[in-house]
Amino acid sequence: MQLNTTPQRTITVSAPATIANLVCGFDILGLCLNHPADEMQVTLTDKSAIHISSTDGYALPYEASENTAGAPLLEMKKLLPEQTGFDIVIKKNIKPGSGIGSSAASAAGAVVAANHLLGNPFTREEMIQFALFGEKAASGVKHADNVAPCIYGGITLIRSIFPLDIISLSAPPLWVTVVHPQIEVRTSDARQILKKQVLLKDAIKQWGNIAGLVAGFLQNDYGLISRSLEDVIIEPVRSILIPGFAEVKKLSIGAGALGGGISGSGPSVFMLSTDEETAHRVKDQMQKVYEGIGLDHFVYVTSINTQGVKLINH
Amino acid sequence: MQLNTTPQRTITVSAPATIANLVCGFDILGLCLNHPADEMQVTLTDKSAIHISSTDGYALPYEASENTAGAPLLEMKKLLPEQTGFDIVIKKNIKPGSGIGSSAASAAGAVVAANHLLGNPFTREEMIQFALFGEKAASGVKHADNVAPCIYGGITLIRSIFPLDIISLSAPPLWVTVVHPQIEVRTSDARQILKKQVLLKDAIKQWGNIAGLVAGFLQNDYGLISRSLEDVIIEPVRSILIPGFAEVKKLSIGAGALGGGISGSGPSVFMLSTDEETAHRVKDQMQKVYEGIGLDHFVYVTSINTQGVKLINH
Repeated sequence: MQLNTTPQRTITVSAPATIANLVCGFDILGLCLNHPADEMQVTLTDKSAIHISSTDGYALPYEASENTAGAPLLEMKKLLPEQTGFDIVIKKNIKPGSGIGSSAASAAGAVVAANHLLGNPFTREEMIQFALFGEKAASGVKHADNVAPCIYGGITLIRSIFPLDIISLSAPPLWVTVVHPQIEVRTSDARQILKKQVLLKDAIKQWGNIAGLVAGFLQNDYGLISRSLEDVIIEPVRSILIPGFAEVKKLSIGAGALGGGISGSGPSVFMLSTDEETAHRVKDQMQKVYEGIGLDHFVYVTSINTQGVKLINH
Repeated sequence: MQLNTTPQRTITVSAPATIANLVCGFDILGLCLNHPADEMQVTLTDKSAIHISSTDGYALPYEASENTAGAPLLEMKKLLPEQTGFDIVIKKNIKPGSGIGSSAASAAGAVVAANHLLGNPFTREEMIQFALFGEKAASGVKHADNVAPCIYGGITLIRSIFPLDIISLSAPPLWVTVVHPQIEVRTSDARQILKKQVLLKDAIKQWGNIAGLVAGFLQNDYGLISRSLEDVIIEPVRSILIPGFAEVKKLSIGAGALGGGISGSGPSVFMLSTDEETAHRVKDQMQKVYEGIGLDHFVYVTSINTQGVKLINH
């Protein structure tokens, strides 16, 4: 590969959180958030190695092949001149295991930063293909519903993974309230409790809702978005892993939220609202529930990030 | 109910054919065709009876409660002054049992005509609710994916039947080739061979495609429409009831069609194309297949009817 590298050897990027499994859009719809976001500093070196360090206390794997930022760059390196290496310094603001795309942010951030330093030789689709190796390192599964919105920004539809087919969906302004109750839900457990078969009548209901949700986004129809935010297949099974889920959902909708559900495979729960004021009322209700249960939690009020990974000092 | 009836006592309407179960949109997506269409003459009377006759040779049930045009008007009559009746004369151009919404055309045509003669007291949604009684008379099931596009025109999403939630979807120009091989596929048989359970992984593939198809229509993206016209759940089971199906599909796509599938529960097969010339090439391929098999067939080349049931002499 011929590279047209920029004179710049170091770049800092902001790699945002994302919400996958958007209610009825299990495995196919993801959304990018403005907050929280990891900060990553990536430096191009001629040492032919990938070196990873962090500025916070999280126990990340520092072996590149096992690290969600390292694995994608190892894959990218196969196409680069031998003496190309990267130093990565990660400030992890998105807590691993929270269900808001922590591993995807590291993977997408590393790939976008490296691509920039190399003079942008790769397309967005190719960047996603690399980033998927980070998801595989993290969970064993190459799922794109976090890395796609993290790189594209906004709301993305992953129509197909093999071959990769990603479609950006426009949407009206949406505010997002996310609560992260401090319990662990392992992705592997969340996958295992799903039934391998579903009733055809439930599947039909689900594809009516997913069609309605996509139409609601593209037609800027809040009412249709709200009516379509219903999941009759995954949520009834997985929500039992999340204490307070039913109460959070009921009170959030009572406070004016359009609807919402489990973020990724949990434990975070998200709700969509039309405006910031409502999103804050939803936050109050979420806090009330977890204070009542006595469970530690973080709550974020944020909006849709239409840009995805941002280059900071360039 | 207070009525503001028009002085007009007789109206003629054109009630078009429709395609339900739009490939991956089983039970939720329907499309209205410009051709063929039934012609119906409806007269408002003060005889408190519904009288049905036809100008062609089809053996329709003439008892109003068993007739697809009569049953919806019987339901409507419950809300009308006692001395209100209708005479209906049907010229049936859409062959019953063809799978292109013959019963829906009669039901929708009767309701739209009656509503006009009564001074339009009912909304489109209420008209659909009446028309569903025609579908129930015909097949025992109140499915809306033919009557909704027949009354709304264009492409309609039926997100939910209970409660009724219908969304019109805009789309780029599309040409439709429909072949009706002269065999009988009973709707009840076509329902019975479907499995009650489906694999979750297939359901996910299907909702990726339905989301892609809706986005393709709304974003005027022919490529995305084409890639999304894939049904991994219903078509593999039902297509075995239709001789020549695989060959028709293969040759049609080879001739330039975007894709297509079984119309309704068959036996008609439809293909979508971007232009009239391609739609005619698709027609040639369909004819070649059924001439090869030696099976009688009709072929229609038509386009999307964005208006639905049309009032003719008003």
